[in-house]
Amino acid sequence: MADKAGSQVQISNEMATLDEKTQLGANEVKPQSVLKTPKGTRDYNPKQMAIREQVFNTIINSFKRHGAETIDTPVFELKETLTGKYGEDSKLIYDLKDQGGELLSLRYDLTVPFARYLAMNKITNIKRYHIAKVYRRDNPAMTRGRYREFYQCDFDVAGQYDAMIPDAECLKIIHEILSELKLGEFQIKVNDRRILDGMFEVCGVPADKFRTICSSVDKMDKTAWEDVKKEMVAEKGLAPETADKIGEYVQLKGNSDLIDRLLKDDKLSANKVALEGLQDMRQLFVYLKLFGVEEKIAFDLSLARGLDYYTGVIYEAVLLQTQTKQNYSSDSAGVGSVAGGGRYDGLVGMFDPKGRKVPCVGFSIGIERIFSIVERKDERSDEKVRTTETQVFVATAQKGLLEERMKMLTDLWQSGIKAEFMYKKNPKLLNQLQYCEEAGIPLIAIIGEQELKDGIVKLRVVSTRDEITVTRSNLKEEIEKRTCQP
Amino acid sequence: MADKAGSQVQISNEMATLDEKTQLGANEVKPQSVLKTPKGTRDYNPKQMAIREQVFNTIINSFKRHGAETIDTPVFELKETLTGKYGEDSKLIYDLKDQGGELLSLRYDLTVPFARYLAMNKITNIKRYHIAKVYRRDNPAMTRGRYREFYQCDFDVAGQYDAMIPDAECLKIIHEILSELKLGEFQIKVNDRRILDGMFEVCGVPADKFRTICSSVDKMDKTAWEDVKKEMVAEKGLAPETADKIGEYVQLKGNSDLIDRLLKDDKLSANKVALEGLQDMRQLFVYLKLFGVEEKIAFDLSLARGLDYYTGVIYEAVLLQTQTKQNYSSDSAGVGSVAGGGRYDGLVGMFDPKGRKVPCVGFSIGIERIFSIVERKDERSDEKVRTTETQVFVATAQKGLLEERMKMLTDLWQSGIKAEFMYKKNPKLLNQLQYCEEAGIPLIAIIGEQELKDGIVKLRVVSTRDEITVTRSNLKEEIEKRTCQP
Repeated sequence: MADKAGSQVQISNEMATLDEKTQLGANEVKPQSVLKTPKGTRDYNPKQMAIREQVFNTIINSFKRHGAETIDTPVFELKETLTGKYGEDSKLIYDLKDQGGELLSLRYDLTVPFARYLAMNKITNIKRYHIAKVYRRDNPAMTRGRYREFYQCDFDVAGQYDAMIPDAECLKIIHEILSELKLGEFQIKVNDRRILDGMFEVCGVPADKFRTICSSVDKMDKTAWEDVKKEMVAEKGLAPETADKIGEYVQLKGNSDLIDRLLKDDKLSANKVALEGLQDMRQLFVYLKLFGVEEKIAFDLSLARGLDYYTGVIYEAVLLQTQTKQNYSSDSAGVGSVAGGGRYDGLVGMFDPKGRKVPCVGFSIGIERIFSIVERKDERSDEKVRTTETQVFVATAQKGLLEERMKMLTDLWQSGIKAEFMYKKNPKLLNQLQYCEEAGIPLIAIIGEQELKDGIVKLRVVSTRDEITVTRSNLKEEIEKRTCQP
Repeated sequence: MADKAGSQVQISNEMATLDEKTQLGANEVKPQSVLKTPKGTRDYNPKQMAIREQVFNTIINSFKRHGAETIDTPVFELKETLTGKYGEDSKLIYDLKDQGGELLSLRYDLTVPFARYLAMNKITNIKRYHIAKVYRRDNPAMTRGRYREFYQCDFDVAGQYDAMIPDAECLKIIHEILSELKLGEFQIKVNDRRILDGMFEVCGVPADKFRTICSSVDKMDKTAWEDVKKEMVAEKGLAPETADKIGEYVQLKGNSDLIDRLLKDDKLSANKVALEGLQDMRQLFVYLKLFGVEEKIAFDLSLARGLDYYTGVIYEAVLLQTQTKQNYSSDSAGVGSVAGGGRYDGLVGMFDPKGRKVPCVGFSIGIERIFSIVERKDERSDEKVRTTETQVFVATAQKGLLEERMKMLTDLWQSGIKAEFMYKKNPKLLNQLQYCEEAGIPLIAIIGEQELKDGIVKLRVVSTRDEITVTRSNLKEEIEKRTCQP
């Protein structure tokens, strides 16, 4: 094969640009200086893909169990579609080069494309999931599952419904998925942007500082209150007394009891926005109890969420302990976040020419982190993940039987059996057996001159080396009986 | 909900960049000027996604039946990874903006990333499939299924094997997939770059004109020979006699007989490269016959394929008639191409620091065109495609039963039943029934005060309006019996 390939190399040089030719000798190929994927990205090898498929199946099954449809959108959007939706994070958006025509950016999340889709198609009711890659020019921390290209698994409900009913179902689904993935103990923190805004007002934060103080509060899962306070006062110019008042609230965590306590808080309940938020929160906990998930939900006033577009309830799921915690000493508290979301009633209206609103609530599962946990769990497990589903390998110990193997494979494929063979005219039996062991193929069908004459096949179970003789006409049935189909 | 959303709009303005603020009034949101996806791209709605899933499943099943694993690579690569691989088509590559750091480009196909993956990980043997989107700044013709963002479904075998065995399996798989998708009659044309190169040499084409004459030949499926000849002579400076000699060969089509005839052609068989190609082609047809697919394969000397990197056998599958042919009058001959591929033994070596070669053969299914055919077939069909898998809808005719519906749903979800309800405290029965009819949900479970007291449920078949009474404890079983699970 080597000299066949030689002509290709030459051709490629001929087609190289002038710029390359000046760097290269006439008949020599200079390999790429650095052989890598772009910063913050990775390939998935077959084993990682097998795990990915398994995790996706669990998630998609749960989405389908709750009646969701799915959509897809392009990987890039018009630049203006993303403009003004992400606040300070906008600097992390990947832009495409201006090569003439429209200005484009890679999608930053699946929520803004969803809102654009709803407005563009004038859809006012939908329950959809969307699993796709998103792009952020962030500082990657790949060993901790933080990439520049990563999957999001989003579920959202759009439509004008009675308060907190779809919101409760979102939390139910997160609960279901995290339980089924068996990632260990988890907790889902909930809060409401209206409670935060009302609280800020009550504490005396100027209205134009709500969002920036909100992002300070959001750091409380990783930073001590004293440092958060320092940021509010020194960097963001808040009066120390105001910060102290905020501090009293945002350190509160609890459940229904805390909601009742805050509803009795004179200042907070006198604030219209906070009151609405608290009353809805009480209703939410009633529904969560009916759905049987209340136990893992915590009302946490320090939960603020980074993104701009939330308008009501917000939530975030965290893993309470992972077996790999010790690796993440730098921010072990914040490492466990694996899902988040909330209500965003204004986003679709930002795209509608007449500003028509479509209320939405949803969440996103941060799947890369989950992959890395499942992957590590898998490494410690005795059972090897298979990367193919091959049921049987068609082998021979004799020379000159390639055509007979091909005929048998044609029959097996025709019957829907997953089957492989070695691409050699005269392969060694040992090599064929070894291949099956490495690939985890459960059965080998062995043929030789005598078997062909007698119309039989030797069927060997790879793991036990048991061998039985079956007739050609029974082969399919015997293979199916012995291989448990996924 | 409207006034809750109001506060969000204001917040978003506050977070807008200075540039936007100068264009917008202080409290008013200016919706996007044009609400669209980027040129040459589209969204997939739930119905299109359901069809897409169905087509992908057929293809993936076939790949798995032949023992393939799967991998994934990032959507962008280092710019230099793509440089010098696509010849004249390089101008269609999407580049990312230089925002500091590496220079990146969106992937143009899945073959070059595959070769980069093999070289980077020093893999010399793999049989893998990869289904993902690729990007080309081409002139889109979306009604004909030609997009700037589109899916490719690639299958490739890398490794040093005996000649033509994996090549034959590739053609077998294309045959299998096109048959199972029921797209109508098809044909797979095959040729070999070595036969083409040998033929060019024999006809007197200068070596540095091989590739450009090759791309002229490639136009013969859409252009008459006379016009192709004109291009060769007038634009590419070939002697008219040379072009005439080429013309005699490239108008030949046939099967094994043609191979035998050309092997007896003194000039061609005296050319070492052409002889190798012809002998391998004869071997290929032997294997294709064993695989039972020979009938649909045509040896076609005008097949040349656009891409630079092929070194041996090349092939292309075309649909012979589509029900929508009349729409494509401008190039009805070329419209049917739905798969293509070939052998590329030099590509991996271009990435390896030591130039080590890994022989490869594979193909790509052009799935967008297949989607549009299946979509149209589906529109004419009476059976409506479902976009969800919901088995039962939990409904009520009475007020105040939201909590009871939620409890029942919790039980059903727990049992793995796919179930939905209306997100209203007191929904109208008619609205609930209508929703089920529109969504194609087969069953409705109806509860009222009396049913709750008696521990029963009315289970209604939506299509026939038959209603049976079942006990709560039998509900799951009765639903499963009546809904055929996918």
